[in-house]
Amino acid sequence: MTMKTIEWIGGVDGQLNLLDQTKLPTETIILECKTPEDVFAAIRRLSVRGAPAIGVSAAYGVLLGVKNAAHQTRSEFDADLTKVCQYLAESRPTAVNLFWALDRMQFTAQSQSGLDPQAMGEVLLETAREIEREDRAMCEAIGKHGAELIPAGAGVLTHCNTGALATAGAGTAFAVLLEAHRQGKKIHVYADETRPLLQGARLTAWELLQNGIPGTLICDSMAAWVMKEGKIQAVVTGADRIAANGDSANKIGTYSVALLAKAHNIPFYIAAPSSTFDLSLPTGDSIPIEERSAEEVICGFGKQTAPSEISVYSPAFDVTPAELIAGLITEKGVIQPVTTENIAKVLQSI
Amino acid sequence: MTMKTIEWIGGVDGQLNLLDQTKLPTETIILECKTPEDVFAAIRRLSVRGAPAIGVSAAYGVLLGVKNAAHQTRSEFDADLTKVCQYLAESRPTAVNLFWALDRMQFTAQSQSGLDPQAMGEVLLETAREIEREDRAMCEAIGKHGAELIPAGAGVLTHCNTGALATAGAGTAFAVLLEAHRQGKKIHVYADETRPLLQGARLTAWELLQNGIPGTLICDSMAAWVMKEGKIQAVVTGADRIAANGDSANKIGTYSVALLAKAHNIPFYIAAPSSTFDLSLPTGDSIPIEERSAEEVICGFGKQTAPSEISVYSPAFDVTPAELIAGLITEKGVIQPVTTENIAKVLQSI
Repeated sequence: MTMKTIEWIGGVDGQLNLLDQTKLPTETIILECKTPEDVFAAIRRLSVRGAPAIGVSAAYGVLLGVKNAAHQTRSEFDADLTKVCQYLAESRPTAVNLFWALDRMQFTAQSQSGLDPQAMGEVLLETAREIEREDRAMCEAIGKHGAELIPAGAGVLTHCNTGALATAGAGTAFAVLLEAHRQGKKIHVYADETRPLLQGARLTAWELLQNGIPGTLICDSMAAWVMKEGKIQAVVTGADRIAANGDSANKIGTYSVALLAKAHNIPFYIAAPSSTFDLSLPTGDSIPIEERSAEEVICGFGKQTAPSEISVYSPAFDVTPAELIAGLITEKGVIQPVTTENIAKVLQSI
Repeated sequence: MTMKTIEWIGGVDGQLNLLDQTKLPTETIILECKTPEDVFAAIRRLSVRGAPAIGVSAAYGVLLGVKNAAHQTRSEFDADLTKVCQYLAESRPTAVNLFWALDRMQFTAQSQSGLDPQAMGEVLLETAREIEREDRAMCEAIGKHGAELIPAGAGVLTHCNTGALATAGAGTAFAVLLEAHRQGKKIHVYADETRPLLQGARLTAWELLQNGIPGTLICDSMAAWVMKEGKIQAVVTGADRIAANGDSANKIGTYSVALLAKAHNIPFYIAAPSSTFDLSLPTGDSIPIEERSAEEVICGFGKQTAPSEISVYSPAFDVTPAELIAGLITEKGVIQPVTTENIAKVLQSI
């Protein structure tokens, strides 16, 4: 990558640089965030997106709220810290990594109440960097585990965007593709454009080019035919939430791809960190499915492409049942076959 | 319909008016075609589209190539006729109705070699008008036969556009929906938007509204989930070419929909006139599949939505194998089950 998705510049008094993903692929613009308000706005407008990337950005955003540490008492510092964490938590309501990262920053401060503000700031910067490093390591481990599943010379289909733009590291499903490519497996990636918001066309196609991975963009409706033509040997996607039995919610169209893969005897994998599992849900039946606006389908390309009076149904996610998933690729290893018992066993391992 | 899709204006020296479908639904513009080049360009750029509509347009387009009949010898006339037919046959490779209509025009001329050019022109105009009239009658018959297959209260999924914009009449698959609606069956149509050129969003959604048929627009990637949610009881699409065994070439994404319907135990039907059958092909394996430009995927709607350097694969059609098709709805009746024998039997009936 020539551009970093997320980069902290300087020390405790530094700034957070974010690649503005709303401008890709036609413009690469760096947002220089110098205040918590800048980070809040970037998350809210999806300039930074992908649950892990949001968590890392929020951790650094906390630093921007306690910048004047040198001139503060510790109690003033703690008050500012609480305030900025509460503020950033409002930026997006559903991304679980956001709350997790903010809680971790606050817990770090609470557990070192004897430090002066200056030293506490240094420790918090180190905590944010640790969150970023862990995210990178998670991506790397997912990539390594997943690459073993990809045959040499394979055509690999993916859906939506799961790469460096969605994490602090190489991504989830995309990390698998990147690692297989780096191992010289000579894979060819087919990227679904992923309607309605075209994350595949705008972001995954861009990341394939950035990394020199041979790839081809297709419309979502072409996946079945590309499989029929023998071009696909494996499918890998990410996930937004995985139930205890392995049922996986992911970007709308993932369930379709899983069914088509089954019809062509192609293994369908999901790559996601252990933080994506929600073991409180026995199956995917109770995962709530967000509905998006008609506007995104009717005028998604900046031009009206359907009558404004037509009714639109636009679920943002679908749920792929566990029986269609050949393996769940996590940083702790591959869960295969996908059963409640295997999921519990792998997630409990250290 | 307030606008006619295809309209020949005047006599032998007349012109072909086509509703420019690339401008729908936001603009209704009439293209006045005065030369075969005008018709060729209109077919190539999909200003007129849909296998039957292409056939009717090409038949009238032939007239534009022999316009100067009054000043020609019969052999000059025949040479011009052959030239214009060969030329128009190059406009699109997959829709067999195009070749069928051109062959019929040439056959008519060959069978009346004694007529002078002026009289021959009149006969050819009458032949083109007959093709148009037959198309209208064919749509009506398909609608009647197909409506019997649609259960009352059904959700019916369709792909691409097969309505009055795709034929000279009420359409093929759309005629089935229209007739079921007119019979008071209280159906609800789900229209795939049909990437990359959005014929479902731009044209089918428009025709649903024009005809007051309750309908909902979805992205192609949502079809599987809508089926899983129990909203679909039947699928009906059109076809561009059907082999002797029933393998059917149609708009890219049709094969995907057929597989998804099978996975959910939903009957998948194809509605097409007998002119869509190409009995010279034993199976669909040898149907040529047109590839469209990367441009249509990367910046289809005025705004670039993918990196310009990304490789794109954009087959315009796919082939659905006969075994996925619950029935072929033709103007001569429903072919069910879809076998080489049943196809031959129904097509040979009068």
